[in-house]
Amino acid sequence: MWQYETTTVWRSGKEGRLHEAGNPEIAISTPHEFGGPQNMWSPENLLAGAVGACLMTSTLYFLEKARVDLRSYMSNTKGTMQKTRDGLAFTSMDVEVSITVGANDDVEKALRAAEMAEQSCPVSKALKCAVNVHLQVNVHGTWEA
Amino acid sequence: MWQYETTTVWRSGKEGRLHEAGNPEIAISTPHEFGGPQNMWSPENLLAGAVGACLMTSTLYFLEKARVDLRSYMSNTKGTMQKTRDGLAFTSMDVEVSITVGANDDVEKALRAAEMAEQSCPVSKALKCAVNVHLQVNVHGTWEA
Repeated sequence: MWQYETTTVWRSGKEGRLHEAGNPEIAISTPHEFGGPQNMWSPENLLAGAVGACLMTSTLYFLEKARVDLRSYMSNTKGTMQKTRDGLAFTSMDVEVSITVGANDDVEKALRAAEMAEQSCPVSKALKCAVNVHLQVNVHGTWEA
Repeated sequence: MWQYETTTVWRSGKEGRLHEAGNPEIAISTPHEFGGPQNMWSPENLLAGAVGACLMTSTLYFLEKARVDLRSYMSNTKGTMQKTRDGLAFTSMDVEVSITVGANDDVEKALRAAEMAEQSCPVSKALKCAVNVHLQVNVHGTWEA
């Protein structure tokens, strides 16, 4: 069993801070479109960030196991929230993952690693809504997909 | 419809960064107990943080509507992850919320606001596991609960 603890402290208005032992604090607020200030992390963005981060760390685990020569990993995560009969709710998460590897032989391994990550990422699996992952693997120095 | 976009970029080893337009970046990594470095936000902690942050911003909304004289708000969010037949999975989120208000008359209003937040928080509602909220409201300058 593993436990993940975070402290939330209100500062003023619609702003606060997230703390976790030893980590740099994160300034948080109500999303700007719901009356919060600009340039702070909203809970909604942190949820999208947790999904993107978990897919990355899970993929890194499987890439390392498969001894892939990883050159770059980037993803864009888009969480969609809609008004539903049950109030505001997340209806989907879409993640575009772009990976660059060192050799042609690594492409298949990287695709497999990312698929394993998609299936096992505990943050994605914790969500009720669909998490759609779109995957692209390139070889360093070429334009091949 | 609202969309929340976040970019995840790998740096090296088990580390990366989360970006969102205009917001300070967040250093992320695999949790320390799974081989990551110390002092970075893990996806698991970000998920707990998103829950704690969403309950706060939702509560602030209802407290403002009820014109409660809020003096302090703090919460501790604990996410529990376990090995299940389906692999690693979050099995519960426990949130201890502590609110201080300015007057006795505000106690009931604050309790009601926090309960409304608990029911409507889109991040909690996005999770499959139970989110258990424990609530305490104190009056500023007294020890009354």
